[in-house]
Amino acid sequence: MPPIITAFKSSPDRGRGLARDMRVRWAFEEVGQPYEVRLVSFGEMKQAPHLALHPFGQIPTYEDGDLALFESGAIVLHIADRHPGLLPGDADARARAIGWMFAALSTVEPPIIDLQIAKLLENDKPWAEQRLPLVEERIRERLGQLSNRLADADWLDGEFSAGDLMMASVLLRLGDSGILEEYPNISAYIARAEARPAYKRAFDAQLAVFIAASNG
Amino acid sequence: MPPIITAFKSSPDRGRGLARDMRVRWAFEEVGQPYEVRLVSFGEMKQAPHLALHPFGQIPTYEDGDLALFESGAIVLHIADRHPGLLPGDADARARAIGWMFAALSTVEPPIIDLQIAKLLENDKPWAEQRLPLVEERIRERLGQLSNRLADADWLDGEFSAGDLMMASVLLRLGDSGILEEYPNISAYIARAEARPAYKRAFDAQLAVFIAASNG
Repeated sequence: MPPIITAFKSSPDRGRGLARDMRVRWAFEEVGQPYEVRLVSFGEMKQAPHLALHPFGQIPTYEDGDLALFESGAIVLHIADRHPGLLPGDADARARAIGWMFAALSTVEPPIIDLQIAKLLENDKPWAEQRLPLVEERIRERLGQLSNRLADADWLDGEFSAGDLMMASVLLRLGDSGILEEYPNISAYIARAEARPAYKRAFDAQLAVFIAASNG
Repeated sequence: MPPIITAFKSSPDRGRGLARDMRVRWAFEEVGQPYEVRLVSFGEMKQAPHLALHPFGQIPTYEDGDLALFESGAIVLHIADRHPGLLPGDADARARAIGWMFAALSTVEPPIIDLQIAKLLENDKPWAEQRLPLVEERIRERLGQLSNRLADADWLDGEFSAGDLMMASVLLRLGDSGILEEYPNISAYIARAEARPAYKRAFDAQLAVFIAASNG
């Protein structure tokens, strides 16, 4: 039995591949391992059976035999730990690649989520328009620093790793905000990530769920 | 030579132990390993020598021989990987403990940071007072879910782990907001964490830096 992950029954991004199951699908594809998907609705995510798997009522989760995990970072790291292809063999390089996973999730993603909150949850508030530039500026500070570090390298630290998988996934959430285009080397980095066959397979798999739901 | 970490030369929280070097100090103390500290000023953090260690210009960093790491999550995981005391021996339990590290940093800490941003960086904005309850409500959603999962257990998953170290560190950032007190089992969880001898040693070490700087 392959591991089972959960994903949105009804994709809030309409199949654009921005939900966090995409990161896990991509990791499975990079290491060439099969997986199965159980789709959950927004209502089901907040009910006891799903909360037993994910205390914060989100997706993705991961089940493999007796092991249940949540948090996309933990799941991708677990997959990368068990199968070659996403972490370097050298111990120091491996620690640095894991460092980039944490950087993506703890340092780069939070201001990007704040922009989504500002645009989706606070867009009807009286401060919405005036506050938006502050939120965008915090993202630019991080992207400027990331751009400086990346420079003209293909990936963040040597070969493509789980750190790049997570960083590219996080950056893609900026979508059509127009901010990514201000950093040509980051835009090229994301394009390299999206061009990977494993990314494309994962993207097509999550898109198929949206198309099936739309026709259903 | 023990590993060298960086910490604030001038603690922005005046020795309250909320900066991210505290997590790394605590991890070293839990596993009984020595470490050295190099103090950096706010100015130095944004200059080339420090940016070479930490592209986002923050603390802590970690240097051990040829290996340099940044991100408190990555550093604590590296310490926990190398020395017994912070991760279970059982592979599944280990993966779950790492999952709680990611949950602390990716799911629980971001709304707490947003509260600090609202109180410290946006407190002079016209929306400050009106927006604060929204930010606090997002924290309460997470803490309610965490409280439900923790129930009457001592720690998040069996014995104390790096997951608890990170979760307690993140929750402590709520400080005197009054929010923690609404969740008695979380307050008791934090008190258990603070009562650990390793926590106390780490806290005293960072406090000594503040006291020395104040007298200097």
